[in-house]
Amino acid sequence: MISRILCDTFAVYCSLKRCAGCLVGVMLAVASVPVGTAAGATVSTRAAAPAVRRSAAELLAGSSPGDWRPLDPQNTLYMELASGRVVIELAPRFAPLHVANIRALAAAGYFDGLAIVRVQDNYVVQWADPDGRRPVPPNVTKVAAEFDSAIPAHMPFTPLPDGDVYAPRVGFTDGFPVALDSRHVRTWLLHCYGMVGVGRDDDAESSGTELYAVIGHAPRHLDRNVALVGRVVSGIEHLSSLPRGSDALGFYAKNETPVPIRTVKLAADVPPAERSDLEVVRTDSHLFKDLIEARRNRPEEWFKTKAGRIDVCNVPIPVRERAAPPAAAALQPTR
Amino acid sequence: MISRILCDTFAVYCSLKRCAGCLVGVMLAVASVPVGTAAGATVSTRAAAPAVRRSAAELLAGSSPGDWRPLDPQNTLYMELASGRVVIELAPRFAPLHVANIRALAAAGYFDGLAIVRVQDNYVVQWADPDGRRPVPPNVTKVAAEFDSAIPAHMPFTPLPDGDVYAPRVGFTDGFPVALDSRHVRTWLLHCYGMVGVGRDDDAESSGTELYAVIGHAPRHLDRNVALVGRVVSGIEHLSSLPRGSDALGFYAKNETPVPIRTVKLAADVPPAERSDLEVVRTDSHLFKDLIEARRNRPEEWFKTKAGRIDVCNVPIPVRERAAPPAAAALQPTR
Repeated sequence: MISRILCDTFAVYCSLKRCAGCLVGVMLAVASVPVGTAAGATVSTRAAAPAVRRSAAELLAGSSPGDWRPLDPQNTLYMELASGRVVIELAPRFAPLHVANIRALAAAGYFDGLAIVRVQDNYVVQWADPDGRRPVPPNVTKVAAEFDSAIPAHMPFTPLPDGDVYAPRVGFTDGFPVALDSRHVRTWLLHCYGMVGVGRDDDAESSGTELYAVIGHAPRHLDRNVALVGRVVSGIEHLSSLPRGSDALGFYAKNETPVPIRTVKLAADVPPAERSDLEVVRTDSHLFKDLIEARRNRPEEWFKTKAGRIDVCNVPIPVRERAAPPAAAALQPTR
Repeated sequence: MISRILCDTFAVYCSLKRCAGCLVGVMLAVASVPVGTAAGATVSTRAAAPAVRRSAAELLAGSSPGDWRPLDPQNTLYMELASGRVVIELAPRFAPLHVANIRALAAAGYFDGLAIVRVQDNYVVQWADPDGRRPVPPNVTKVAAEFDSAIPAHMPFTPLPDGDVYAPRVGFTDGFPVALDSRHVRTWLLHCYGMVGVGRDDDAESSGTELYAVIGHAPRHLDRNVALVGRVVSGIEHLSSLPRGSDALGFYAKNETPVPIRTVKLAADVPPAERSDLEVVRTDSHLFKDLIEARRNRPEEWFKTKAGRIDVCNVPIPVRERAAPPAAAALQPTR
């Protein structure tokens, strides 16, 4: 997975020949970045954007250590599946009550041995107790809805300039896609690919015993209808490539086996040597702003029609293995 | 898969309990609809929308035969994989040269025995000749770019009211998501989930020997950069759940086995008894307009915050098995 996005920043719709060349170029040129998507381009009917001539891959290759932040072990969940580890960064600023519940559930081993029970194509993967028999720890109860919150006085926010179909204003805070409604002084997280939320019944309250991750086109109509609690920063492919469930809503039918979850633990509760040593581009950095421009205005020759715009859910938030110097990373095999 | 979307139109983020109830309700109430996504909701800052009180599931259950059209066997491709059939509806109005090439490639058996060579998470699945040794039929050559086209005089177009980040105007034509630029009198297909396009090198021309399907958040920056030639109307899960490739751009690495393609045939070249008898909601019907409203303004009790808006790539275009009367369909198992 390592060089996938970096290569993607060079070329996208490429034939086999071209991609082989792209791979070589990336492996020689830049550090590893294990999280994935696409987006961006140049020119349009909009007012002059700053002239950025470097591609996202080139910007990342030239980044400085201060452009990155390590994941906080207190805000990081590891879901261990037979196929590998899914790393989720939690968002306590936006959903403090649910994040506290999820930390307590992980500490109690609530999810260990439970299962992925739902995989709905172009939508979500959901995990829970398939039998409803696992006791919920006494310190975990339903909490108030955390669909949105007041905008705090000093919240960092990197805005996007191209508007949004669903929200007055969109951008990034703490490494998450976010909406702002300045008129009502409210902010909320957005249902982009990889975001993690809390399943609930018809009442607005929920506890966190059922969680889901988005694996399709952003279901933005869910914004402000569930508590979003974090984002998958590594290993989403262990969820998104699972067999789809054949019951309604993608739940696994009786003749289908739910995918077992070995454990879900807070990184802080895992010995340091067993942690994933990842770091994320700071979304309040100049680098990130340049990356956005490089995706809105893609300089690569391949692009014939420049979009000059970007959808908030098409902005990649790069993640890489920490402390891997570029030279070493360039020699690492992909994974 | 049958009742998945219909159920989704009732409830989305539901717990296990709720979903079980949803399943029963759907199985008793409505016909089968084997194509998948999500979207929509009510109220907002917008001007009064027509008061639609029925959900998408209820609208579909009450649809009349004239709201649906069968797939044209001349415009339908079947890709046969070990896991099942992928059905692609072609879009000759938007890419006549490439569609002619693809028909010729299918007629010559060009893709038979080739492979899916690339699966990039949250992006695309691509198929081609992994060895580059398969002879291309002499009647298939590179053709001019079909990135966009002049708007024809009588093109049906069902517009969406909520704007778009990338295009001046978006909506639906012939069952496909489409942009219109009235000022320059141009139209083009959009890279929504399930859309099928033609891989190319740096030059704008392409032939159709390498095709891809979108399996992630709409990569709209690719609009007007490749010829889009159709849409997967059934079986996308056979592509989207494939193991991701570990080389750059999601190509399968040397130690990974590309997924074999048994055959790719035009439906017209398959005996009628072996065809998938599918029909699609007409996107120029009143039913489809009502469905859009039902997704923009979701009446289900579960929704606490109504979006009142919809992204073009979140509008489902329902597909179902043809001639299955609702009563019979309601008793069919999901698949």
